Amino acid sequence: MLATLLTDFGTRDYYVGALKGALLSVSPRAQVVDLTHEIPAHDITAGAFALLAAYDAFPPRTVHVAVVDPGVGSARRPLLVVTRDYFFVGPDNGLFSYVCDREPGARAFHLTNESYFRPAVSSTFHGRDIFAPVAGALLNGVAPAELGAEITDHVRLAPLAPARAADGTLVAYVMHIDRFGNCVTNITRAELPDEACARGIHLQVGAHHIRTFRRFFTESEFVPREIFAIWGSAGFLEIAAARDSAAKMLGIGRGQQVLVNLS
Amino acid sequence: MLATLLTDFGTRDYYVGALKGALLSVSPRAQVVDLTHEIPAHDITAGAFALLAAYDAFPPRTVHVAVVDPGVGSARRPLLVVTRDYFFVGPDNGLFSYVCDREPGARAFHLTNESYFRPAVSSTFHGRDIFAPVAGALLNGVAPAELGAEITDHVRLAPLAPARAADGTLVAYVMHIDRFGNCVTNITRAELPDEACARGIHLQVGAHHIRTFRRFFTESEFVPREIFAIWGSAGFLEIAAARDSAAKMLGIGRGQQVLVNLS
Amino acid sequence: MLATLLTDFGTRDYYVGALKGALLSVSPRAQVVDLTHEIPAHDITAGAFALLAAYDAFPPRTVHVAVVDPGVGSARRPLLVVTRDYFFVGPDNGLFSYVCDREPGARAFHLTNESYFRPAVSSTFHGRDIFAPVAGALLNGVAPAELGAEITDHVRLAPLAPARAADGTLVAYVMHIDRFGNCVTNITRAELPDEACARGIHLQVGAHHIRTFRRFFTESEFVPREIFAIWGSAGFLEIAAARDSAAKMLGIGRGQQVLVNLS
Repeated sequence: MLATLLTDFGTRDYYVGALKGALLSVSPRAQVVDLTHEIPAHDITAGAFALLAAYDAFPPRTVHVAVVDPGVGSARRPLLVVTRDYFFVGPDNGLFSYVCDREPGARAFHLTNESYFRPAVSSTFHGRDIFAPVAGALLNGVAPAELGAEITDHVRLAPLAPARAADGTLVAYVMHIDRFGNCVTNITRAELPDEACARGIHLQVGAHHIRTFRRFFTESEFVPREIFAIWGSAGFLEIAAARDSAAKMLGIGRGQQVLVNLS
Repeated sequence: MLATLLTDFGTRDYYVGALKGALLSVSPRAQVVDLTHEIPAHDITAGAFALLAAYDAFPPRTVHVAVVDPGVGSARRPLLVVTRDYFFVGPDNGLFSYVCDREPGARAFHLTNESYFRPAVSSTFHGRDIFAPVAGALLNGVAPAELGAEITDHVRLAPLAPARAADGTLVAYVMHIDRFGNCVTNITRAELPDEACARGIHLQVGAHHIRTFRRFFTESEFVPREIFAIWGSAGFLEIAAARDSAAKMLGIGRGQQVLVNLS
Repeated sequence: MLATLLTDFGTRDYYVGALKGALLSVSPRAQVVDLTHEIPAHDITAGAFALLAAYDAFPPRTVHVAVVDPGVGSARRPLLVVTRDYFFVGPDNGLFSYVCDREPGARAFHLTNESYFRPAVSSTFHGRDIFAPVAGALLNGVAPAELGAEITDHVRLAPLAPARAADGTLVAYVMHIDRFGNCVTNITRAELPDEACARGIHLQVGAHHIRTFRRFFTESEFVPREIFAIWGSAGFLEIAAARDSAAKMLGIGRGQQVLVNLS
């Protein structure tokens, strides 16, 4: 009976509270857990990445509610995605796209059964009026097919995988910069296997060249202000510095191109 | 067994944690849900508005704990408000005033029964020492009359309703600006019925004139940088812009006067 | 079945969500409560203070998970501290040091039993991969000795108590500045008994002299911009101002020396 919430609502307003209330009104024994409410306003790809990084830490049957919804009230559809272990409820705008890329058997449903919505659906707050009550219904055991028809044309974002240039160079980018200034790229072990790392890697980030690969943030030989590559906890290669902000040291932001030369 | 928390404590300090611990010490099986802890410090009207906007999304018997309490330790009374569906616990300084305006049958009790307080009540943190344990007691089934005597002279703020000028113009103001820059006014459908909106409305905000009323943030005809009026999810008229901050575009803040000319 | 979380992760990233998911995967019926996630990055003493101020508001058998962990992945040990009423799980870097100072019977265990860790432990995120699953195991009733061997050489910070100069002056400092600008010192009633306060105190903070001691933030005689000393809710002497920020008025920050002359 576990639901998570990921939104761009921030925590200053009444929106998160109202969403939780609506969910608990339908499923009063649910435990509701915040993933984050600080996705940048209307930033669907940032929301999609954060969800990708956290969803599979939760126990099976968790319902993940995600609301980054610039098109609320327009023709964009309310969506349910069902994977082997989880449910995802939110707008059909690509927010669940990266999860779908990783979960090949994912099925999508267009939420149309209004009997599971709040009695009066507003035009501006589907989080409270549609997604939260539907999440409560799923926690109560309602079957996906009861909520709407299965669809296959839900919105998909460009996949995260980096491109590969003619000479074999990986053309990647920084997807996310975390609180500590670590720069999370879109490179996984699928593109950069351990053998390649062992032979030595060379990252080019603007005018900077990074040739150090580390396993830990702090190894025995602590080198102040050293910038290095490291496998991050979400499975992506990160550019980091020990006890310092790599993003500030490199002067880079989200979207920054990262080139990887493989020997 | 649900309690919500609304405070001006912020989330950097230990205050929210201590409050939750005190509540759960009395009622260990309660679920405690954060509404927000980012009410501006000591801002009672902002807290009263946020509570008004979220309280009735919760299931019946929810206990709402609200602490915006500049007068802690002084003569201001600790208060319980009981409505048909909910309990409200916090300082008697007007924080529950807007809820009382909307709930005509609300009853108020002066919390005086110290056997339901924390053994040693501090002079600076009644949230932890009085309001949280009393909320736990209510969740455990203790009757309001057991907690203190009923009173009728609890503090009331000026009601939210806009004034009306001699020529029929509504004289309203911006109560709240949300994370997205939407400006929430104190105008409800009681003052501005659908018929009036259908005949056309004219809002005057400083030197700006707004004549567009929309049902959705994004309609088929998307007009960049258009500012419009829209009914918000809390039941108040909002001044908004699609995917933009109306507050920034208009250069206005909380308290800004809004004049509505009705045809 | 209650766990609390205190970290320096912030709330923008997926880290808190992943940690909660890992805990709930092991102990699905646990209630997980946030203390704060806004400890300044890598600031162990700030984390140790916040934990000290909040831990004992919770019911017995609560598991406190604290992660401020600049040395993650290095030789620093994963630690369990057991006091009469609580469990504490996190890195062995001093984070539980102030709690241990206050709980003389505290016992420490080096967490080594990998069968209670996440199957694949990352080198960068022990919060999710070690501390959260171990907390879940404790909530499920696993005994401390099952998790690793007892140790006595866990890291201890310098105790919080102020020094005393030859002339009897207390040499203290500001440990924490809260959201309201109140300055929390490391002075307790052990150093400054009520008799001493009653005889009159004299605090010297840089060039400022404070001679007023108050019991409440707002007493009958409200004096605007008055700075005073007051016993705070965590049991430490605070320097405060009624409805104003003492820190801003004095122009001071954390670490500021505070001298107390006792008559």
